[in-house]
This record gives sequence, structure tokens and C-alpha cells, in this order.
Amino acid sequence: MKNVIVGQSGGPTAVINSSLYGVVTAARACPDIDRVYGMRNGVEGFLKDHLVDLTSVSEEELEKLRITPGAYLGSCRYKLPQDETDPVYPRIFEQLESHDVAAFLYVGGNDSMDTVSKLSAYGEKIGSPIRFIGIPKTIDNDLVLTDHTPGFASAAKFVASTVREINRDASVYDRKTVTIIEIMGRNAGWLTATSALARRQKLDNPVLIYLPEVCFDSERFLSHVEEALTRRNNVTVCVSEGIHDEKGFLCERTGEMQVDNFGHKLMNGCGKYLENLVRNRLGIKARSVELNVTQRCSSAYLSATDWKEAAMAGSYGVKAAMAGESCCMVAFEREPEADYAIHCHTVPVSLVCNKEKTFPLEWITPEENDVTDDFARYALPLIQGEVSIPRKDGLPDFACLDDVTQRNN
Amino acid sequence: MKNVIVGQSGGPTAVINSSLYGVVTAARACPDIDRVYGMRNGVEGFLKDHLVDLTSVSEEELEKLRITPGAYLGSCRYKLPQDETDPVYPRIFEQLESHDVAAFLYVGGNDSMDTVSKLSAYGEKIGSPIRFIGIPKTIDNDLVLTDHTPGFASAAKFVASTVREINRDASVYDRKTVTIIEIMGRNAGWLTATSALARRQKLDNPVLIYLPEVCFDSERFLSHVEEALTRRNNVTVCVSEGIHDEKGFLCERTGEMQVDNFGHKLMNGCGKYLENLVRNRLGIKARSVELNVTQRCSSAYLSATDWKEAAMAGSYGVKAAMAGESCCMVAFEREPEADYAIHCHTVPVSLVCNKEKTFPLEWITPEENDVTDDFARYALPLIQGEVSIPRKDGLPDFACLDDVTQRNN
Repeated sequence: MKNVIVGQSGGPTAVINSSLYGVVTAARACPDIDRVYGMRNGVEGFLKDHLVDLTSVSEEELEKLRITPGAYLGSCRYKLPQDETDPVYPRIFEQLESHDVAAFLYVGGNDSMDTVSKLSAYGEKIGSPIRFIGIPKTIDNDLVLTDHTPGFASAAKFVASTVREINRDASVYDRKTVTIIEIMGRNAGWLTATSALARRQKLDNPVLIYLPEVCFDSERFLSHVEEALTRRNNVTVCVSEGIHDEKGFLCERTGEMQVDNFGHKLMNGCGKYLENLVRNRLGIKARSVELNVTQRCSSAYLSATDWKEAAMAGSYGVKAAMAGESCCMVAFEREPEADYAIHCHTVPVSLVCNKEKTFPLEWITPEENDVTDDFARYALPLIQGEVSIPRKDGLPDFACLDDVTQRNN
Repeated sequence: MKNVIVGQSGGPTAVINSSLYGVVTAARACPDIDRVYGMRNGVEGFLKDHLVDLTSVSEEELEKLRITPGAYLGSCRYKLPQDETDPVYPRIFEQLESHDVAAFLYVGGNDSMDTVSKLSAYGEKIGSPIRFIGIPKTIDNDLVLTDHTPGFASAAKFVASTVREINRDASVYDRKTVTIIEIMGRNAGWLTATSALARRQKLDNPVLIYLPEVCFDSERFLSHVEEALTRRNNVTVCVSEGIHDEKGFLCERTGEMQVDNFGHKLMNGCGKYLENLVRNRLGIKARSVELNVTQRCSSAYLSATDWKEAAMAGSYGVKAAMAGESCCMVAFEREPEADYAIHCHTVPVSLVCNKEKTFPLEWITPEENDVTDDFARYALPLIQGEVSIPRKDGLPDFACLDDVTQRNN
């Protein structure tokens, strides 16, 4: 009888705990597995031996954590050293062995897959039988070798719904206004692209969408906005936080304009920068909205498809480990049929880590200010289905391991 | 047979169209009313004779607009002149008479009640039989003579839920961080106070709450934050956009300011200001989140209580007008029993307009960094109950009169 350990790493998502749910339930159902441990705050916490035993967590708590956004176990941004002779490696393996760990599952994005890859490689080198499996997770949808990543679709559903709601808000006055909505995505425009789904018909807002995959040109942007304003009063523009021109990120431009009382640059988003640009150059009432962390932590618009797939990825990871797989990441492959369906398989984690799958250039329109219908066909199936969140006193009733721990301290 | 006209004015809310629904359904059910007209963009559109006939709007469209955020008819920020000899007054009454209007209902906040009050007063002066009724609407909850205002509770439910979600997101890393959440409310702290409902237990985040009713002291704020950081790693602070010290609004410190038609300062950024203050003075990782327009236009966290009460206020307004009332606003009175219940009555609109009901000082703690349990007892009943939003292709399916009009243009 052996044990399984699971960790969460990197930025949280709305369904990262659904993957945890998948891992825990699959491990508990497996007769060959004795205990399921959770690392508090990923590898960083594991190094301090901050573990939690999830083997006997109540069904009620499991159902609750399943709909809870943010990493239930806590997360970290810890990068293992490149140098394999670093003492951290034997230390980790010693600890894994002391806890009788047969399989190490890590839920995360590119950086977390780097951890899985490095531990796999070290384990192979020392002939360790421990299996290392990555469970994909990122709202950015930027992992290679998978059709999409758990977390993306719920963020997409939040973005598309919220942009549609902001369009309603921004269109109530009978005067020309420009609303800039800044969406997460430093190098990959996937999430910003989903704002196109907010349209209920052609020519609907957002009429302009800018992704970081192409070079942003402020003058061209202003002429696009002016042109759009000849067709409609209220213009919504969606931009990725990472849009940039040949001089660099636009968001870094705002620091040049504003300095606080301490002489420090005020770091504002590119949305704020463009809001000021529109107001000052076009003399049009402008507003910017930064969707900020809410787009990755809101449970309001969970996609049932995403939520189920996240759990599936977790449980598939356990089964793959028990079948002897290692050094891999669980990935989704879309069935070729017309109706949407996916299946899980594994891909070598060394081919995934530290790579970014950016938005396909062929899905960006020639004017570089919109995305094509091919993208909508790709994304629409992912955001289908609702998840009902239990409420207590009118508010979402979340699981919170942190509170339990803090009470015990 | 006479007609009724209804308009929406000021900032939109999530349930402003539920009030419109209440007006339309009550008017259609009333045998003495022939047609129900809607003003496009409030009085501003009415002056251009931009009307829409709502008498035969389909049940399907009515059900849809009922859950649609933002003003279905469009809104305006139009202030009637103080001078009663201004030609706009006879013009409005001429137009009302030409459309055989018996009752004028206006859904809005303080400024909109000013419109109702001025038209009532002018109508009385010229002996017009037309009745003028205000239907309260504001997320700010700052109208006097009513227990609360439609729109407040849904915004409150959004704020409390979202703050709870951001707390989840902000607490995943095992390092000291301060998260500042900026909430709407220029002069009244009601909405910011509802962030206290996000706590699931005492000492939970948000551990600090600052309202504009008391003078903000940056040094005292920093010492509160430092003290809180000794007790926990992740500190969430909720602030009203309108917090100020003796030198004025903090948001004006960031260098951004605009003025709207009423001479109100349009503000941005006290959260950003405090984020920089924490980072620079305490050397702590800090982030700020501005909830922005989403808090007033999201349909994700509609309060069923609010939603029903908004419709009730609209239909009560029609009944009051038909019973001969005028120069008044519909108001809510809470029943004295233990269980929550309200009833509608009317109050003189001249006593409501241009006044602000700020947050009671006795509900602010002596340290001026939190609210008391009395407030929770007041607010909790208002956010109860969920409203299911119909979806199409995975996204909320809203009604949109603007699109219809734009297609016709």
C-alpha cells in the first residue's frame, strides 16, 4: 500500500479545486492507494513538511471544495533550481520516501509543469519508482499539446458574460462613449478573444478586440475607434493586459505619466492608458474597466463543461500514475465529430513546460482588431452548462482549509 | 382612457428593469389605462419625442427585460432648470398632453427625484391634472425616507460575494499581502459596508473597512494594516471610492479627475492610491481591485428580495398615481416584526430629492475601520434569494431595446 500526494501551484482558477476533487476521489476509490496527502502551498510548503491528510475529508467538505474558487491547499510560485546537484532534490525525494509516496500529482500551468519535469528527470536519474504527473490548469489556455486547459472556460464564461453586462451598462446614455475593458493575458490572447462571445449579433459590442500576439499601434487604434464611433454611440474595446508596441508593454507606459507623492511610478493597466489616450486625443468620454482577479476567482459563471473536465483531468492523472505512467501531463484531445467531446491522454511534460501556446494568428482578422468565427466555434462548446453554487445567508458557501488551520494555530 | 409614461434616469442598476416590469404590468392590468409609453433616455429623450410604446410588448420580452441589467429604455443625466419660467417646462407639459398622459413615472435616484419634484411643482402651479411619481433606484442606498432602495441589495450581494471570492484568491500564497478593494459610494458608505457580510466568521477578511462618512487618516490606516498583518498573512481592506481626509478625496491625489453634467466629480483610484501607499511605506506586496461598473450591472448575484421589491415599487407607483397621488416617491417601510417584511407607501418627493442618507455613524466602530453587527442585521435580509438568469449558448440572454432601434435605423 502506497500513498499519493497532490499539490496546487501558480495562479488560482475557479476550477482548480475541481481537479483536486478528481484526484482525491479517484485516489480514495483506488484499492492500491492508502493515503492521499495534500501539500500546503505546493512544493514550497512540502519542503517545510506542511502536509494535510485528505484521505478522510468528509463528502460534504469535498462537495464544497469542488465549487470553491482559489487553491484549497494554497499555492506557491516556487521554481526548482536548474542545477540537479542542488541539495533540494535529495531532500524532496527523502521526504517523498518518508511519506511512502508512490505518485506525485501537481495541478498547475507552465511553471508548475517545469517542477513536474525537473522532479521526473531527477527521479529517473536516481532510479526512483515515484511517478510524477502534471494536471493542467490555467485561465490563460497557453499550455501546448492540449486542446485547452481546465480553468480557461470558466474564466471565458465570466469574461463573455461580464463584457455583455458592461455593454448594457455602457450603452444607457445617448452620448458618445468609449469603454475599454482590460482582460488578463500577458503573452496569450485566448481569454481576451472570448470577449467576442459577448456579442449577440454581428456588429455588436465589443466592436474592437486587441490581442498581444500582434503589435499594437496606437494611431491605428485611434482610427479604428473613430471609425466605430461613426457607426454607433457606445464603443466597447477589449484588450489583453499584455498588448505592446515596438517600444514594449503599453501598461508600462502609464508609469511615465503618473507619479505619486513618493515619486514612485503608479503602475496602471493598459486599459487606463488607452482610456486617457481616447479622452485626450479624441475628446470622447472614456472609461476603463480592469476585470482584475475576479475573472479567475469568480464562481458566478462556472462552466459545467470546464468544471467536469477539471475533475476528469485530476482523476485521469491518478489512474495514469497507477498504470505506471510518469514524466507526463494529462491533456485533452477533441473528438473529431461535429458534437463536442474530448478524451484524456498523457503527453511528455518536458515538451509542455516553459512553452506558451499563443493565440493562432490565422484566427485574428486582417485588421488585427478582432477574432474570426473559427475561434467562436472552438470556444463556444467549452463554456456550456451551469453549476449551481450552494448559498448560505444569501452568499456562496465555500470550503476554506486556511480558516481551519488558522483556528488551530 | 388615459396613458401612462415611464422613464429611467441616472446610473443603471441590476434591477432597474424589474421596476420597469412592475410599471408596465401594473399599467397593462389597469382598465383605466390605455397605453404605456417609455421615454428613451429619460426626460432628455422625451424632449426629442423619443418614445416607445410598451403596451403590447410580448410577455417573453417582458420576462427577459425583467432580468436584464442596465436601463432597458436608456437613461440620462439631465437636470431641469431651477427657473420655472424656462420654456422647457411648458414644452414638456405640452408634449405630455399631446400624448394624453395621466401619469408620469420616473425610476431613479436623488437627481431623478429632483426632476419629479420640479415637474410636480410646475404642474401644480399651472393646475395640470398629470400625476408625477418617483420610483426609487440606486445602488448607493442614499435616498432618505425609505428603509432602503431597489438596486442596493443586488449590488450588495455582488460586493459581498465577490469580496469573499477575492479573499479566496488573495490568500493562496504563504506570504504577506495586502489587497485593497475599492467599492462604489462617493458620499455614502452603504455599499462598502456590505463587504462585512463576506466574512464567514469573526476576524475573517475583510479585516478593515473604511467609509466616506468619517475622515480618513492615512497614518492611522497604515498602523491598522500593520497591526492586522501581525495576526494574519493576507489582509483585505475594503474602501469606498469617496474616502477623504481633511485635504479632500484620496482619489484626487492620483491626479485623475473629471466632472459630470451635475458638477459631480467623477473619481477613480483611491484603491490604487492606497495600494501604492502600502507598498511604499510598509514594503508589503499590495494589490488593488476596483469593482467598477460590474457591481451595478452584474446579473450574477441578483437578490431575489431586491428584484421582487423593485417590481413592487414600480407597480405600487402606478396604483398610487391611479389613486390620485402625485408629487411623491414610492418608499419602503420595514414591518416591526422579527421576520423581514416591508410594505410600500409614498413620501413627498420634495423631501427626498437632492438629499443624501449617509451611513449611520453609530454603525461605524469606534476605531472607524469597521461596521457593527447592527448593520449586518439591517442588510442580511435584503440579499436573500437567488434569481435564475436564462442562458443562451452558455451566456445570459438579455433583452436589448437599443439593438432593435439600431437595426431599424
